[in-house]
Amino acid sequence: MSIKFGPDYVRAIAPYQGGKPIAEVAREFGLDESKIVKLASNENPLGVPDSAKEAMARAASDLGRYPDANGFELKATITAKYGVPQEWITLGNGSNDILELAAHAFVEPGQGVVFAQYSFAVYPLATQAVGGRAIVVPAVAYGHDLDAMLAAITPDTKLVFIANPNNPTGTFLPAAAIEAFLKKVPASVVVVLDEAYNEFLAPELQYDSIAWVKQYPNLLVSRTLSKAYGLAGLRIGFGIAQPGITDLLNRIRQPFNVNSMAQAAAIAALNDTAFLQKSATLNSDGYKQLTQAFNELNLEFVPSFGNFVLVKVGNDDGAGARINLELLKRGVIVRPVGNYGLPQWLRISIGLPEENAIFIAALKSILAAA
Amino acid sequence: MSIKFGPDYVRAIAPYQGGKPIAEVAREFGLDESKIVKLASNENPLGVPDSAKEAMARAASDLGRYPDANGFELKATITAKYGVPQEWITLGNGSNDILELAAHAFVEPGQGVVFAQYSFAVYPLATQAVGGRAIVVPAVAYGHDLDAMLAAITPDTKLVFIANPNNPTGTFLPAAAIEAFLKKVPASVVVVLDEAYNEFLAPELQYDSIAWVKQYPNLLVSRTLSKAYGLAGLRIGFGIAQPGITDLLNRIRQPFNVNSMAQAAAIAALNDTAFLQKSATLNSDGYKQLTQAFNELNLEFVPSFGNFVLVKVGNDDGAGARINLELLKRGVIVRPVGNYGLPQWLRISIGLPEENAIFIAALKSILAAA
Repeated sequence: MSIKFGPDYVRAIAPYQGGKPIAEVAREFGLDESKIVKLASNENPLGVPDSAKEAMARAASDLGRYPDANGFELKATITAKYGVPQEWITLGNGSNDILELAAHAFVEPGQGVVFAQYSFAVYPLATQAVGGRAIVVPAVAYGHDLDAMLAAITPDTKLVFIANPNNPTGTFLPAAAIEAFLKKVPASVVVVLDEAYNEFLAPELQYDSIAWVKQYPNLLVSRTLSKAYGLAGLRIGFGIAQPGITDLLNRIRQPFNVNSMAQAAAIAALNDTAFLQKSATLNSDGYKQLTQAFNELNLEFVPSFGNFVLVKVGNDDGAGARINLELLKRGVIVRPVGNYGLPQWLRISIGLPEENAIFIAALKSILAAA
Repeated sequence: MSIKFGPDYVRAIAPYQGGKPIAEVAREFGLDESKIVKLASNENPLGVPDSAKEAMARAASDLGRYPDANGFELKATITAKYGVPQEWITLGNGSNDILELAAHAFVEPGQGVVFAQYSFAVYPLATQAVGGRAIVVPAVAYGHDLDAMLAAITPDTKLVFIANPNNPTGTFLPAAAIEAFLKKVPASVVVVLDEAYNEFLAPELQYDSIAWVKQYPNLLVSRTLSKAYGLAGLRIGFGIAQPGITDLLNRIRQPFNVNSMAQAAAIAALNDTAFLQKSATLNSDGYKQLTQAFNELNLEFVPSFGNFVLVKVGNDDGAGARINLELLKRGVIVRPVGNYGLPQWLRISIGLPEENAIFIAALKSILAAA
């Protein structure tokens, strides 16, 4: 028998299942790459903002050098935008990095981590990678039950993950609910408020989580530039928290975790409010387009506050996988969510109007043939 | 008193001290950025190969999409170059990522990790980040003492780091010595052979570590594209090991750890043997230029097999910091190595001939004035 390396909790991890890349689907199904529509990874269908492309072109000459490990210029941009000192910022290789850093920094093997059923797959993965004990709190209406999450906190719980809006379900927690939770959570428990989809919120739903960071030394807000800012391929996100948290994250962060291209592009993108506005409008229009089609098809969906919609494509547990396969054959990539315990559902990222239309037409033809 | 988060072993970490970025030195010393010479981070003075720049330009249009989490095309390139199956490859956000993944995957709090005195600062950092117990084995002639490292392995030792050539000292272990070590090391201990500087070895010193990977299921070879390949700013490295190791690394790897630009550039760079040859020649010429000057100045240096030279700039423990400060004032950035326990020494990366000359002139004037 071969020797097994590593602790049991590492060997038990099932790797993250991401969206299939377009090239992979083309290879697998013998399709023309240029004809494939990908609505699988909650990317911005507008791609990289022009402002970021220009910044990248300027940064390109210096890529033989290591990145600035302290991200001086990028932190200055975040400082100006969010009104927090540089010492409150942790840069991440995507916000995925921030989530994993939090698990590594605050959780020892055997300690508890609380998160909601149907929340981001990286929460259980990051928990398991450090040998933490996942405390999964049943969802209510596909969203977080904050009262139950509070009640689930044990004496050895070190970390709580809250996503707002939540992925993959799209649900939203009003500011007052989160604030009430923060008031009651023990001060020794770090709360990660994952705001990856924050920029898609309608203006009347926006809230000031940075004010909470100033008030609560145990709060870590995480943000990404992979979604509304269109920089998924470059890998850049950040965390904002008081120094008691930020110090530790920066101690275990890989010194050159954020590449130079991502730093340059992020500075430009964070200042590009026009692009953000355009993305939000496109998203809101696309949401209407998709949900109108779901209504016409009598398909249940979860009202979404992100750039995706969770839709129920059948009443049997094979439905999600079956419809997904049919969509793939027609060159449409969406996200099956059986691994989230939602085998009757698919998660559809909101694309360009013509991409949404191709998906809708494919879905209609599949359902009509069934 | 404020609440302390996280385990003691995380709070005890001192963050990695990297080379100062050029912009930071310019700000701090009021210098013109364009006049600064940076010989601090063992970067390739030729910068990014043209082949990689072209590949990046082609990849730029698609950066709104997530990277390929499985790195299909890049792994195919590595497979072709090194003759190993795709299942033996782990892609990293620089080889730093591979080193940290190894610590996370194989070491539980309290377990032992063996490495040499005067070896890469990330070994103790990665060990501490997982609560491992560092077993530091005294160096011999500034290099690894493999017999002593073997003897230092305890029943609970899970990992050994070996760097060849070693950074920051530049020492080299002949292939036969490593092979003898691999034969004797317990099969339950993972050996990381860090070959970040392998490409600078003279042809007669090159050895086939991939053959060892095929023979030893507990060997992980790590490689980087930050040094000879000139891609430090993009962050890309990889590990090669049998599936018993590779499976676990890929389970705890962040799914999108390697950005799309880095993947595209790496494919081009790995195939660019002309650039590698040019880099090796430049390095060998620069080594002669630097060491000839050190000989003229009667400065002791450690014969180096990498792209840098460790030189003793004084006999008192303030010498390294003092000469470093004087060099900074003259716009020359090198690496002080007091944090490695070498306060009388500086590490000088080999630059372009004109950069080496500027450094030599500055050093001469500083020593003459002392």
